[in-house]
Amino acid sequence: MDINGVEIQDTFAEAFGIQTSRLLITAATKKLAKIAATEATGYGTSVIGCPAEAGIDCYVPPSKTPDGRPGYIIMICNMSKKKLDHELLERIGMCILTAATTAVFDAMDEPDEKMGIGKKLKFFGDGYEKELEIAGKTVYSIPLMSGDFLVESDLGIKDGVAGGNIFIMAENQPAGLLAAEAAVDAVAEIPGAITPFPGGVVASGSKVGSNKYKFLGASTNEKMCVTLKDEVPDTEIPEDVNGVYEIVIDGVDEAAVKSAMKAAIESACTVQGVLKISAGNFGGDLGAYKIGLQDLF
Amino acid sequence: MDINGVEIQDTFAEAFGIQTSRLLITAATKKLAKIAATEATGYGTSVIGCPAEAGIDCYVPPSKTPDGRPGYIIMICNMSKKKLDHELLERIGMCILTAATTAVFDAMDEPDEKMGIGKKLKFFGDGYEKELEIAGKTVYSIPLMSGDFLVESDLGIKDGVAGGNIFIMAENQPAGLLAAEAAVDAVAEIPGAITPFPGGVVASGSKVGSNKYKFLGASTNEKMCVTLKDEVPDTEIPEDVNGVYEIVIDGVDEAAVKSAMKAAIESACTVQGVLKISAGNFGGDLGAYKIGLQDLF
Amino acid sequence: MDINGVEIQDTFAEAFGIQTSRLLITAATKKLAKIAATEATGYGTSVIGCPAEAGIDCYVPPSKTPDGRPGYIIMICNMSKKKLDHELLERIGMCILTAATTAVFDAMDEPDEKMGIGKKLKFFGDGYEKELEIAGKTVYSIPLMSGDFLVESDLGIKDGVAGGNIFIMAENQPAGLLAAEAAVDAVAEIPGAITPFPGGVVASGSKVGSNKYKFLGASTNEKMCVTLKDEVPDTEIPEDVNGVYEIVIDGVDEAAVKSAMKAAIESACTVQGVLKISAGNFGGDLGAYKIGLQDLF
Amino acid sequence: MDINGVEIQDTFAEAFGIQTSRLLITAATKKLAKIAATEATGYGTSVIGCPAEAGIDCYVPPSKTPDGRPGYIIMICNMSKKKLDHELLERIGMCILTAATTAVFDAMDEPDEKMGIGKKLKFFGDGYEKELEIAGKTVYSIPLMSGDFLVESDLGIKDGVAGGNIFIMAENQPAGLLAAEAAVDAVAEIPGAITPFPGGVVASGSKVGSNKYKFLGASTNEKMCVTLKDEVPDTEIPEDVNGVYEIVIDGVDEAAVKSAMKAAIESACTVQGVLKISAGNFGGDLGAYKIGLQDLF
Repeated sequence: MDINGVEIQDTFAEAFGIQTSRLLITAATKKLAKIAATEATGYGTSVIGCPAEAGIDCYVPPSKTPDGRPGYIIMICNMSKKKLDHELLERIGMCILTAATTAVFDAMDEPDEKMGIGKKLKFFGDGYEKELEIAGKTVYSIPLMSGDFLVESDLGIKDGVAGGNIFIMAENQPAGLLAAEAAVDAVAEIPGAITPFPGGVVASGSKVGSNKYKFLGASTNEKMCVTLKDEVPDTEIPEDVNGVYEIVIDGVDEAAVKSAMKAAIESACTVQGVLKISAGNFGGDLGAYKIGLQDLF
Repeated sequence: MDINGVEIQDTFAEAFGIQTSRLLITAATKKLAKIAATEATGYGTSVIGCPAEAGIDCYVPPSKTPDGRPGYIIMICNMSKKKLDHELLERIGMCILTAATTAVFDAMDEPDEKMGIGKKLKFFGDGYEKELEIAGKTVYSIPLMSGDFLVESDLGIKDGVAGGNIFIMAENQPAGLLAAEAAVDAVAEIPGAITPFPGGVVASGSKVGSNKYKFLGASTNEKMCVTLKDEVPDTEIPEDVNGVYEIVIDGVDEAAVKSAMKAAIESACTVQGVLKISAGNFGGDLGAYKIGLQDLF
Repeated sequence: MDINGVEIQDTFAEAFGIQTSRLLITAATKKLAKIAATEATGYGTSVIGCPAEAGIDCYVPPSKTPDGRPGYIIMICNMSKKKLDHELLERIGMCILTAATTAVFDAMDEPDEKMGIGKKLKFFGDGYEKELEIAGKTVYSIPLMSGDFLVESDLGIKDGVAGGNIFIMAENQPAGLLAAEAAVDAVAEIPGAITPFPGGVVASGSKVGSNKYKFLGASTNEKMCVTLKDEVPDTEIPEDVNGVYEIVIDGVDEAAVKSAMKAAIESACTVQGVLKISAGNFGGDLGAYKIGLQDLF
Repeated sequence: MDINGVEIQDTFAEAFGIQTSRLLITAATKKLAKIAATEATGYGTSVIGCPAEAGIDCYVPPSKTPDGRPGYIIMICNMSKKKLDHELLERIGMCILTAATTAVFDAMDEPDEKMGIGKKLKFFGDGYEKELEIAGKTVYSIPLMSGDFLVESDLGIKDGVAGGNIFIMAENQPAGLLAAEAAVDAVAEIPGAITPFPGGVVASGSKVGSNKYKFLGASTNEKMCVTLKDEVPDTEIPEDVNGVYEIVIDGVDEAAVKSAMKAAIESACTVQGVLKISAGNFGGDLGAYKIGLQDLF
């Protein structure tokens, strides 16, 4: 099949289960909320090497937040609940509590369970912390140098989905990149889905292990490298493709990831110079989820 | 002494040694370089809870970079060389190599030693990597899905300074915050100095240990909390102060931190509603550096 | 009455009729649409001295636009239909048509009438223009150097409302400013309302004519100047107020302006250091609309 | 000749004289200065249809400004001195004076003459204005609602150069666009030069008059339209080019425009998919300046 003349390959994205949290950061202004959200979700592209996968889900206007201030919902994810607990404590404690005018509320619908992150962070108040109720939520107020930081007592987590993805194959690098930016803009509209890589875009692809260096756990996927297409005999890069970017998507559930992949593909296909949409998988034996590209439409 | 009518307290900032790296990220555009720099320096406010202290040092225009493209210099710091090595590998490998169109060059003047970060990252190329020379530097080219990633072979590190700081005490929270933003803008001008907290601003202050909860390593510094000034007998918050923000500065050396503190104070004192500048210390016995505020002028 | 302890003065904003247009700019990415929207709405604070009043109304995600690309809705307003026609032609022709990858669609609900802006702009195509139908809309495609520009044939205009406003009176300038930013964030949520001044915030206030210089049509409103409160006998600045900012709101109708004023007040009152909310009027004899602050709640 | 394999056509840009002003806007923070600079330079792409050509020249850090606050230098240009006087008065009076915390200083080196813009704006103070001296400059302080606005008495103007330009011809639209962004980043580094179009990039090209519609002063340049290359017999678009963007440059003098064009070309040629650099001229009979592309190197 094709969309706007762009071939949608008959393949599937292979995705994995991941423990997912979703929290709302509010602040005095949209800009201040964004600053905290950005710091808290940095160094969070892939759990292969980062301590978490993290990203901004969406903006929430003042009329829709518990404290009537603008906010951003972020997601922080890790394969292990214990590590997720650690990441939530440190990313909230070091990157949001320390940011100007912020508060943190749970934003996970239908969680599998709740983690007492606020219950632990409150001890930082050294006895001066207070329990409040805001919009029906139990919240702790912790006195800081600049004023009080509010954090909801319990934050929901859920068995979500990591590694939803599409490959954008284009005439050249700039076309792939512009299409990738358009795809990221489209995913931003889908609640419960993030694109955790830098600016939402992935410039590299990897394979498990290495052919040459046995000590490596992962190495570049030479079959998908545009500059190696004349050198690697079993290259998967078509003759006319000179730029490939990937969009990786994590979501609170498979439905969110599918909606995000669909929106990403549709947007990527509006950009001139995009030739083909594909996806990454490991043959289907590793991940719990197989999301066929053509099944999305 | 005072500046623009703002009292500069006769006290000092207590700062510590830290292993510091400084690298230049270039990309096709300024915006793309910023995206990579932001991801790579996130979750990097303080080594108390973050895996590194990190921040953007400055922008470098195309005419001043080895590859003629715009770039940002970032700094990544850790107390331990081994941990810094890990952070450099992962932050570059997961957050810059994966970002669109980037390259990484060393930007540390007069390093104490060099770490072979590029030499290790090159193995990701699985034999397809190449050694190049660019502007006299040894650089590895690693083929990726989107094109080739360049990284300099060795990156310099240096025994730098962490925890330079000033406290901005203001009539209210917004005045403290605007002054803090002005101070961060001023530090941005100083080469070799970063403000690693969210947006460069620290909303909280902590003391070692806790009075009430013995299991805690650190807790809020109640003497510096504006909302506790009527409750805590030995409060250090003056009667008319209702907002306090801190600027924390890490630098490649003491001179950079001092220049940054001076610039931060001068800028903070241009903002209406700022009443007093102070600094944080632990009595002078913990840190290797004692930087007197009044000595800066 | 008061909100969060902030006094809402028993007064009213005096607003005026204005001819209002509302158009959607789409582009390949959100960023590109924002660039065009920003250029097209610049130099557009007040018709007292600018050729139009203009601002960004809201972001529209790809799934909600006629061409499936992200976009921004902007509003352009002028007292005179003839001048509005000129401004639409020039601002679209010079600032949107010339911007990368853009298209323009009508976004005015229930217009009073339609202006054939696209019908006129199409002649720029010099015979190479084409008429298309997109999502039921008549659109002209005009070939440009970079590709084709699309513009809807007719754009709706409506007798809207200009000069809705609130005054934020605060302890100091930074508190007034942070509250003003929060208010602008809140108005951004209201469809059909813009804050046309720089960043949405007004630093100055004026009165009709001048006491000293008879050749002037307008001069500073000395009764509302914080630095003159000890000098001007009939000052309206309370003793403890040292910073006043105004939010000016234009809307497609009175309901939009009222919703925006209400949201602006509620958000401004979340910020520490705000003491009082007032509004500007000319006694009620000049403007067609009198919007009482307390009636909004 | 070629650069990085990109052909530099043996042609020239034809540029024109224009009256040019250059002013520094300072504010409490970099962000606030940017807000004012953006509003004041909007609706300023080309004097063909806009009341001025305007853009941001560069950022100036606090240590280099007369009042120790961060600032942006902007340029505002018009063919006529009288119209430039009007534009300066209105753009400063309506878009900078009204913006939060701003001040305006002259930033034109070696002006041809000075215009008494501050001398006229001061009357807005209605007798409460004051004359000050800051860093050796005569400045007026005008009381506003939020505080005092400062504006230098006289602003220098100079017979500068408008319409310096390059055409970036690329495989597709995204490649042309990414190269254009890179070129704009490069011009940002050149003092005294601006790129007045939206985001610095021009998507359209025009010819004088029209072949089909005799009432038109200008129409699309069909020979340079990528989507017409198969239809227009004397097309100037090479077979493999599908995206063309122009960078238009205004400068304080020919040297600034030449430096900017050179930097723009070098940066554009770092981007994959760029095939050729050309420039726009009218045969050389209209403009006072003929800047040969190959002469720049």
